[in-house]
Amino acid sequence: MIFASDSRTNAGVDQVATFSKMRVYEKPDDRVIVALTSGNLAMTQGVVNLLDRQARAPEGARTIWSVDSMYDAAQIVGGALREMRLRDAAFLEASHIEVHSDLIVGGQIGSEPPRLFHVYSEGNFIEATEETPYFQLGESKYGKPILDRVLSPALPQKEAAKCVLISFDSTMKSNISVGLPIDLLWYPRDSLRVGLQHRIREGDPYFTMLRSRWAGGLRRVFTELPDPDWLD
Amino acid sequence: MIFASDSRTNAGVDQVATFSKMRVYEKPDDRVIVALTSGNLAMTQGVVNLLDRQARAPEGARTIWSVDSMYDAAQIVGGALREMRLRDAAFLEASHIEVHSDLIVGGQIGSEPPRLFHVYSEGNFIEATEETPYFQLGESKYGKPILDRVLSPALPQKEAAKCVLISFDSTMKSNISVGLPIDLLWYPRDSLRVGLQHRIREGDPYFTMLRSRWAGGLRRVFTELPDPDWLD
Repeated sequence: MIFASDSRTNAGVDQVATFSKMRVYEKPDDRVIVALTSGNLAMTQGVVNLLDRQARAPEGARTIWSVDSMYDAAQIVGGALREMRLRDAAFLEASHIEVHSDLIVGGQIGSEPPRLFHVYSEGNFIEATEETPYFQLGESKYGKPILDRVLSPALPQKEAAKCVLISFDSTMKSNISVGLPIDLLWYPRDSLRVGLQHRIREGDPYFTMLRSRWAGGLRRVFTELPDPDWLD
Repeated sequence: MIFASDSRTNAGVDQVATFSKMRVYEKPDDRVIVALTSGNLAMTQGVVNLLDRQARAPEGARTIWSVDSMYDAAQIVGGALREMRLRDAAFLEASHIEVHSDLIVGGQIGSEPPRLFHVYSEGNFIEATEETPYFQLGESKYGKPILDRVLSPALPQKEAAKCVLISFDSTMKSNISVGLPIDLLWYPRDSLRVGLQHRIREGDPYFTMLRSRWAGGLRRVFTELPDPDWLD
């Protein structure tokens, strides 16, 4: 599995800041759970805070560290989101602020296969399948066409990572509220350990090369395609 | 100038229909005005109906046939949109239906240079410039990256048409509410006549070739790009 998130947050164009949107809960040989967040920052930081605290929960409590299925982990994340909504929503509504925040939760626990969930703002969630092997959060449309053209469950992890970075490139070209650094995480199936965490910053040699050669390649394909002959 | 519109309209997935979204007002050697519509169909048909009626307006009336600037034509279209909103909005709001409909209005009148406007749902409008030489309506994000990479005022009309069709291809792959036929219109600068109107239907040989070779070209560029070496 490949996880990736940008780290730009904004509350209007004059309040732009950098916050990582990726959180990793790893207990080697037992579980790796990755949460990617999007939407209202106060809400998602609240959710992450509730999840972080579960590390100190009493023995026997139902937490992301104790459940034996990713389905339950997704439910716990959805529950944390609902707890935050119950706490904040009425006050935000009073100021006519509509709050959205949703998460991607994926990983593997014990002998269960790796699983990937999209937890909605309301705390309910759906799971990825062979036919739909990926989820996106936030500004998803600019970067979706390349994912739809390339991604499949059989794609090697290197190509999946490359595809995700090209998708981010398209999004960053069209929406300035998405920006570097990009956090990228590779979870190798059945390893129950994080395979790699990599932060792509401004000037990253691989990403810079990828952006420039992708742009050049697209223009070349475009130029080589025949022009319409009915426009002479 | 190249204008293009799909022709799929939907009021929910079980009410999908085909309506052209392109309207042409041409008086050879005097003016060509093209209007592309998006959004609520009752609203845009109402606007088009008001514009069509201007053909029968009394001599001396201020209509799209009489004004001597595209700016005034855009204002007339915006006025028609406002007239429809005044007529319908209160009833729609009573049923909690939010109505959006905006238009692209472009063309040339007399000795004025060709001009292109985006008329918003509220009847106000903006004009395209050298730096931003195109507008999109409706489901715009999937198809925007290729426009941003390729379009420039200096692009020959054949390549601009090719680029627009590739943009529609990306959109149609990701959103089933956008569909064939595509109406395409070429207006040659200073001709004051429609250069070409072409309807691209299912099975159109050029568009079918374009879609397939674009997909193949993208995959080839993707495959040829080096994989990240930090993911070994």
